[in-house]
Amino acid sequence: MEAVIMAMNVLVTLNAAYIHPLKVMLTSLFYNNPGRTFDIYLMHSSLTEEDIAGLDRWIAERGTGSRLMPVPVDPGGFRDAPTLLHYTVEMYYRLLAWKFLPAHLDRILYLDPDILVLNPVDPIEQLDMEGYLFGAAYHDIISIKEINKLRLTPYKIEAYYNSGVLLMNLALQRKRIREEEIYEFVKKNRSKLIMPDQDIMNMKYNKDIKTLDEKLYNYDARYYQYYKLMSGGECDMDFVIRNTVFLHFCGKKKPWKPNYSGRFHALYKHYEKMAFG
Amino acid sequence: MEAVIMAMNVLVTLNAAYIHPLKVMLTSLFYNNPGRTFDIYLMHSSLTEEDIAGLDRWIAERGTGSRLMPVPVDPGGFRDAPTLLHYTVEMYYRLLAWKFLPAHLDRILYLDPDILVLNPVDPIEQLDMEGYLFGAAYHDIISIKEINKLRLTPYKIEAYYNSGVLLMNLALQRKRIREEEIYEFVKKNRSKLIMPDQDIMNMKYNKDIKTLDEKLYNYDARYYQYYKLMSGGECDMDFVIRNTVFLHFCGKKKPWKPNYSGRFHALYKHYEKMAFG
Repeated sequence: MEAVIMAMNVLVTLNAAYIHPLKVMLTSLFYNNPGRTFDIYLMHSSLTEEDIAGLDRWIAERGTGSRLMPVPVDPGGFRDAPTLLHYTVEMYYRLLAWKFLPAHLDRILYLDPDILVLNPVDPIEQLDMEGYLFGAAYHDIISIKEINKLRLTPYKIEAYYNSGVLLMNLALQRKRIREEEIYEFVKKNRSKLIMPDQDIMNMKYNKDIKTLDEKLYNYDARYYQYYKLMSGGECDMDFVIRNTVFLHFCGKKKPWKPNYSGRFHALYKHYEKMAFG
Repeated sequence: MEAVIMAMNVLVTLNAAYIHPLKVMLTSLFYNNPGRTFDIYLMHSSLTEEDIAGLDRWIAERGTGSRLMPVPVDPGGFRDAPTLLHYTVEMYYRLLAWKFLPAHLDRILYLDPDILVLNPVDPIEQLDMEGYLFGAAYHDIISIKEINKLRLTPYKIEAYYNSGVLLMNLALQRKRIREEEIYEFVKKNRSKLIMPDQDIMNMKYNKDIKTLDEKLYNYDARYYQYYKLMSGGECDMDFVIRNTVFLHFCGKKKPWKPNYSGRFHALYKHYEKMAFG
């Protein structure tokens, strides 16, 4: 009997402003995972039918066998959800994806659109997630870590995880995450929350997160020198290009915008050209 | 009648130390010129049969239809050639390639191995070279230009061309370049020559060089900010990735060596990974 390699489930959530980087991210995902197919679940509440049709066609044209699986979300479904200044109900998408995704999905890989996929995703798919709600990496940059630990006191968090790459154990999330509890939590901690979904995940589920190696699964593109130094030189450019799976363009400055500057700028533009010809 | 697109002739000259970057250069050439085939003429005097066989196999495996055309050069053929401290007769290869290449070749594109080819080479092939011995670009960086003009006085040179990318009009070179004249010239100017072949080309043939746009055909990877500034912002990363044909890693620091650092480092490593898997 031959082994059947199933399509891998990937989740993205975005509005129209992020379709451009999404296409770059998907281009890099397809290119560096030849022979694999992906079911791209797209949770959204504001994309038009044209947006969706355009994205569907664009993915089909790549010819990789990957498919777009739109998951329209009615913001009315969050009637009871407290919102925060500047943040809409979309902030709950990552925490409540299990509610909206098909019941037969046990696990899904959430990816931010400001990511380049540089290597095969197979290893992350094979991670044992038994007992964990999420798999995520934290950025071990001293300043980031300490600021967030202080900020989220009195919740004791071991590490402040980044929610840009999340391996979701949907089967366990359906059993253990309660929508109402999250809303209660937000009401109680309003004043502390700066990046709401990431903060909630860190404060409420910190012990239920399996730690992924950030150098492989959530490399912060701003900190090349830091990674290289901290690894005694091992994590150099060769290492990143040959091993890092998810290169994450964290922060306000984005490589698809004018006046970006950074070590991975040329590489990003290379994939962007591949995406748009 | 259908147009027949012929293989394009490319010339490289190297020793074993440069086989690695040559493979990266060729990978980028093939990747960004899909559907084109290249006859890669390799002038050398020190490569072993194994080196050549390995390179031949490596090119054949790419499956692009491109071929390696070795041009072994007997250093004894340069018996009358004066040499300079630190420089061997290989310094004459670029100036005297017309002597060693097959007589039916009218034109060839010489490329240094420390180059990435980022876009199709077709436009350079179609350049009108009538009356010119070489096509080349000069680096319009104030300091480089002025230093070289001063250095090569009293020869009046309009621009100091870089010999890393040379479009050679072999048909005209066979008529106009005299080996003995070059040797005479070297003897007479020994003290001035720092980069011998490049200096000779600039001093002796300056008016016979057709100027190529350096931003397209010989972009110096060290000067991203300079190009961007001087072009009023037009020559940004987008421009380079979408328009620059030859990205040249000039200078002593090379991107395949440890501790290189630069804006195109990640992109170089990307092509290097493509070349070596």
